[in-house]
Amino acid sequence: MTYCVGILTREGLVMMADTRTNAGLDNISTFRKLHRFQREGDKVMIIASAGNLALTQSVLSLVQDGLSNPETDELETLLDQTSMFKAAQFLGRAIRSVYDTDGIYLEKHGAVFDISMLLGGQMRDGQMRLFMLYAAGNFIEATPDTPYLQIGEHKYGKPILDRAIEFETSIPDAFKIGLISMDSTMRSNIGVSMPLDVITSSRDSLDCQRDLRIKHDDTYFQELSANWSSALRAAYQSISTPPYE
Amino acid sequence: MTYCVGILTREGLVMMADTRTNAGLDNISTFRKLHRFQREGDKVMIIASAGNLALTQSVLSLVQDGLSNPETDELETLLDQTSMFKAAQFLGRAIRSVYDTDGIYLEKHGAVFDISMLLGGQMRDGQMRLFMLYAAGNFIEATPDTPYLQIGEHKYGKPILDRAIEFETSIPDAFKIGLISMDSTMRSNIGVSMPLDVITSSRDSLDCQRDLRIKHDDTYFQELSANWSSALRAAYQSISTPPYE
Repeated sequence: MTYCVGILTREGLVMMADTRTNAGLDNISTFRKLHRFQREGDKVMIIASAGNLALTQSVLSLVQDGLSNPETDELETLLDQTSMFKAAQFLGRAIRSVYDTDGIYLEKHGAVFDISMLLGGQMRDGQMRLFMLYAAGNFIEATPDTPYLQIGEHKYGKPILDRAIEFETSIPDAFKIGLISMDSTMRSNIGVSMPLDVITSSRDSLDCQRDLRIKHDDTYFQELSANWSSALRAAYQSISTPPYE
Repeated sequence: MTYCVGILTREGLVMMADTRTNAGLDNISTFRKLHRFQREGDKVMIIASAGNLALTQSVLSLVQDGLSNPETDELETLLDQTSMFKAAQFLGRAIRSVYDTDGIYLEKHGAVFDISMLLGGQMRDGQMRLFMLYAAGNFIEATPDTPYLQIGEHKYGKPILDRAIEFETSIPDAFKIGLISMDSTMRSNIGVSMPLDVITSSRDSLDCQRDLRIKHDDTYFQELSANWSSALRAAYQSISTPPYE
């Protein structure tokens, strides 16, 4: 399993992902699922990926090595795109290209074409945007009403996002709430696990201010997890007992 | 969708279920999913059901009207069973009987044989037990290590159970934590909705002390929901800001 979340607030973007990949119980590895694409001072994009690892790696190779533009027949990369919307369309085309190559063989082996991606970022003279791409290559976009998007094992970590994330949430708070969401997920599904990768990008900076890996022995994360547990316990204890007899 | 949870602690049993049934977006109704079977002073059982409504209703009819015992060929009901384990086996036989009748036709219409049930209760001279039955009619049992079982849309409401429910939790606290779990689920999935049905049974009482319906205008539940939201907000605010730069 995988859990990735992207949060787009007025201040900027926070994206994070776990790193566990498993193909069966005894084939567990660490793979990076958060990828940064940047041309300094010009554009910055972050992709988070979930699903079949062979598929996500193929898509990431394609968007880096280049995919032929159906109109001009020229090879283009993700960094050649001139707007975030075009970048989302391009990533969708890369997913469809892998589907055209691999989809039928996966079906023959009873496997599903399972892939989803988050794409966040900003280009010069453009807005900062955050998209979620489906296996069909289509996509939706985060808005101030719903300023976060999740892929992978998303349900356990959604209640805290639903209640705590708003468009006006600061980047440090979004970072913290994202970690709580990750912690809730890891506690309920062992298929999602440390280390965690986190990237943050302030709006209009066209750069990433944080790009880090949080390991299992990280002191802050251990404290966050313990403090969240005791805060939850205190929270339910503060609610009065049901009056029904 | 449906969400039901059963909690079995040292003090006794708490079972609750939402009441929303939907077959498509415009076919939404209220159906009771929590059912009580009792022979006074002798045995008490509670069944919670999730899945295809036609299937769960058929199973409930069978266990009330009677199902033929394959060894004696005699008609038996759930209340004829002489232990909780036999009751779980009997409920499993009822699920399999409906599968034998309906399963193949569902498959022909591209539908899945989708059913799961919780069975909790106690019989005189026996232990209080809580089981979860799968569509195949097999079942698992709650233990002091994992004193709760969920069926239906279970993920959103699991983090709070994981952190707050223990075997030593009192019935009123288990009731309250169950309601918080329900509230988290309803907030994240509109397919799970009020009113809620709740039944509690103290260990060795062979009776139910509470059997009630909590409606959407219930004052306590509204307060619980609002207080839980603000307590969560206070909880994440009490955690220090991530130190990573």
